[in-house]
Amino acid sequence: MAVTVDLNSDSGEAFGSWAMGDDETMMTLVSSANIACGFHAGDPLTMRKTCTAAARNGVAVGAHVAYPDLVGFGRRFMEIAPAELTNAVIYQMGALEAVARTAGSRVSYVKPHGGLYNAIVHHEKQAQAVAQAMKDFGGDLSILCLPNSEIEKAAQRLDIPVVHEAFADRGYTPQGTLVPRTEPGAVVHDAQAVAERVLRMALEGTVVAVDGSIVKLDAQSVCVHGDTPGAVEITRAVREKLTGYGVDIAPFTAS
Amino acid sequence: MAVTVDLNSDSGEAFGSWAMGDDETMMTLVSSANIACGFHAGDPLTMRKTCTAAARNGVAVGAHVAYPDLVGFGRRFMEIAPAELTNAVIYQMGALEAVARTAGSRVSYVKPHGGLYNAIVHHEKQAQAVAQAMKDFGGDLSILCLPNSEIEKAAQRLDIPVVHEAFADRGYTPQGTLVPRTEPGAVVHDAQAVAERVLRMALEGTVVAVDGSIVKLDAQSVCVHGDTPGAVEITRAVREKLTGYGVDIAPFTAS
Amino acid sequence: MAVTVDLNSDSGEAFGSWAMGDDETMMTLVSSANIACGFHAGDPLTMRKTCTAAARNGVAVGAHVAYPDLVGFGRRFMEIAPAELTNAVIYQMGALEAVARTAGSRVSYVKPHGGLYNAIVHHEKQAQAVAQAMKDFGGDLSILCLPNSEIEKAAQRLDIPVVHEAFADRGYTPQGTLVPRTEPGAVVHDAQAVAERVLRMALEGTVVAVDGSIVKLDAQSVCVHGDTPGAVEITRAVREKLTGYGVDIAPFTAS
Amino acid sequence: MAVTVDLNSDSGEAFGSWAMGDDETMMTLVSSANIACGFHAGDPLTMRKTCTAAARNGVAVGAHVAYPDLVGFGRRFMEIAPAELTNAVIYQMGALEAVARTAGSRVSYVKPHGGLYNAIVHHEKQAQAVAQAMKDFGGDLSILCLPNSEIEKAAQRLDIPVVHEAFADRGYTPQGTLVPRTEPGAVVHDAQAVAERVLRMALEGTVVAVDGSIVKLDAQSVCVHGDTPGAVEITRAVREKLTGYGVDIAPFTAS
Repeated sequence: MAVTVDLNSDSGEAFGSWAMGDDETMMTLVSSANIACGFHAGDPLTMRKTCTAAARNGVAVGAHVAYPDLVGFGRRFMEIAPAELTNAVIYQMGALEAVARTAGSRVSYVKPHGGLYNAIVHHEKQAQAVAQAMKDFGGDLSILCLPNSEIEKAAQRLDIPVVHEAFADRGYTPQGTLVPRTEPGAVVHDAQAVAERVLRMALEGTVVAVDGSIVKLDAQSVCVHGDTPGAVEITRAVREKLTGYGVDIAPFTAS
Repeated sequence: MAVTVDLNSDSGEAFGSWAMGDDETMMTLVSSANIACGFHAGDPLTMRKTCTAAARNGVAVGAHVAYPDLVGFGRRFMEIAPAELTNAVIYQMGALEAVARTAGSRVSYVKPHGGLYNAIVHHEKQAQAVAQAMKDFGGDLSILCLPNSEIEKAAQRLDIPVVHEAFADRGYTPQGTLVPRTEPGAVVHDAQAVAERVLRMALEGTVVAVDGSIVKLDAQSVCVHGDTPGAVEITRAVREKLTGYGVDIAPFTAS
Repeated sequence: MAVTVDLNSDSGEAFGSWAMGDDETMMTLVSSANIACGFHAGDPLTMRKTCTAAARNGVAVGAHVAYPDLVGFGRRFMEIAPAELTNAVIYQMGALEAVARTAGSRVSYVKPHGGLYNAIVHHEKQAQAVAQAMKDFGGDLSILCLPNSEIEKAAQRLDIPVVHEAFADRGYTPQGTLVPRTEPGAVVHDAQAVAERVLRMALEGTVVAVDGSIVKLDAQSVCVHGDTPGAVEITRAVREKLTGYGVDIAPFTAS
Repeated sequence: MAVTVDLNSDSGEAFGSWAMGDDETMMTLVSSANIACGFHAGDPLTMRKTCTAAARNGVAVGAHVAYPDLVGFGRRFMEIAPAELTNAVIYQMGALEAVARTAGSRVSYVKPHGGLYNAIVHHEKQAQAVAQAMKDFGGDLSILCLPNSEIEKAAQRLDIPVVHEAFADRGYTPQGTLVPRTEPGAVVHDAQAVAERVLRMALEGTVVAVDGSIVKLDAQSVCVHGDTPGAVEITRAVREKLTGYGVDIAPFTAS
């Protein structure tokens, strides 16, 4: 029986005249696109083009919701009030849903971006606010997140399907958490090494931690970067490695 | 048989800490609310509160779509490209639809705001872009606009229901067009006079023009202002006058 | 010998079509105006009008620098990087300086706004970044801040003149710190009571704390609010009380 | 006696995480940098880095003032009111001046950007508003513009020094105006051809028009593009050609 894995990547992070990454090519390599919704990146026309490219390639569309912070690219923490955050997320989901439907697709999951993604690992109120937005929005959208996070707990409390992700090029500690970016081994840069890691994640559900130990990962999706140097090359290597071993690359299905 | 008229008013035009108008009261007086979608006014939390108030009062929700221009309040013309405008309108419609659904309502029509409203009376490409957005968005939403405008023609070409509006407090020329704001008689300020005018619009479909002649108006909705001095008092006078004469105030239904 | 006290108030916090407070009247009552610089409020035309009003009334102009956060009115904490903060502050100072000079005045001090004001009481890196901006900008501008704060220390390290402020309508603890807004006694609402407090600050340099004890305050300026209900009435009461006791109201001079 | 020509190029058009062009290299090739001021591009940190690079390379700093339109990159016309435009320009000039001074330089001229640049060729009120801003700002800054434009006339009325520019890679009509971008010959793409044109501009003050005729140009500065494909290569070719013929490349001095 075929093994299947989802590859997700940030997409549509251009803004007006500014480009970011090579979405056209990435869309031919991944199975899920986390599409910017205009708060940290992504203007309406960029969203339309990105959703169209996703639909054309059979790539699932996720709402890459963010803090309202264009100049900071949504990367830095903001002490936003829960009611404002909930409605900001609903707003972004609705905007992307309308654009995605126009392009012949629909939003099937939410993956918070940058500073918000990091905050809701531990910030209970913001995590709750994001989960509430998804509950209010309705439908059967999944939240794509880290295991053992506040957002996971909040989602579970509201019966929102949770999908865990791992990171293709990030180092892991023996405890299964990410090596902080300030420490050695935080990022794996070699395309073949990354490809080997993702293959192991797909086939065995494990990763080799920075100390050489084998760590079990609980992930239905693997995040590959779309805007770093070599992003396309690395993702292509991952794809070739997976398909070479008979692993199917397809959007996750929430359990 | 009872005569029915729709009263529409701009709503939800606060932004963050800044207030605009008295939405809470206006929502008890009008039947349709043109709700700002974040581009000229209206942040997600304001949109939520405004949609909630509309739903509570049985007021229909319209997307008050606009140019992306907060500092200009969407009032000034922008030479925006058609593809950008189409997707900007879809984006705003989707954002408001998601918020409105959360509040137990839905978007039932579109009324462009300010500079965009004025532009698409005569600007064929922008009119076409707005109509295309509504076509792409789908559903059975109406466009609320001036008769004999480019937006009306564009909407008709795409089979989008058209609803005409008149203005409660604006002077009309003998030709049935608005008296320019730079000329005498452009605005009627007296609450009772405005109420009489709206009653005449509702009962006879006419208005007394600046030269005293009686002009036929083709309008299924009457726009009352929500943010001018005396807005609440004027609208209350209109409502009392209409109901005193047995005229029902209810959201329009597109023919 | 006459006692002199400075009254400072936030000003120019309109944005585009949105109003905030009654700047015209407040300018006749205070001696220093903390003028918004476009990041949390204040557009260029509002800045011009506000600086013109300040110049006409002999009111000193302060740069009310803030996080880049219009929708949040600069009230919430942002984890902005020091280099970005430093240059954001220089940018705002320069913009206001150009507008103030056009209006016949100049920027004579800096008072950070809202979330930034609160952050640099204790956030060492952001405090240092603000002080560095003032050092880089040059001139002899003072920083208006709370005593015993990180921003005070950072300013002193860079030889920037420090001016302390007290709050006219805020409750004080016996330790001389502000009563948190979540606790009873945080805000004094009665105009005469506020006036009495400011008189005591001016004449004796003390305040009556929430427990009735007399606390020494080290302040050369007293902040009055410009945008709360009753702001004008309260400030007028303060002014009348002070002048009635022969206290001069004039811009502070940094020692 | 040595011939001198100024090469100017748009710079600092990154925004937050988004890059635009290769400023670092361009700064080693041109003599004047039109630096974005935050309204169409350019955030405070980008402005600081760009001013620092300009100062390091002895490149003159110009304020590349624009409409407030990030998502449109300031390229589209906006019907902005004169008083708003004047103060928007003063604001941008002041912000850049503060940053430039911090970097050891100063603003020596203004070159409006994109949609504003195009508008003030013929839009008398906006041209007047820009000139008024420069008058209000004070100092001896020049305006860099097209000859025979409304902005030139407005500047002359207010005694603002005018410097004309030509375009290195744009086709010219026999009348000395630019060939519209929709027509053949609008842009010259070959680096050597562009270099030959600029040399002719510098040495003879002429350009070969699209019909082969020789047209006199009245220009003290030549604009080279910084963000088009091949921008660096073309500019390098221009520089090498000029210096090979003994032409000095240096900031213009207003007459």
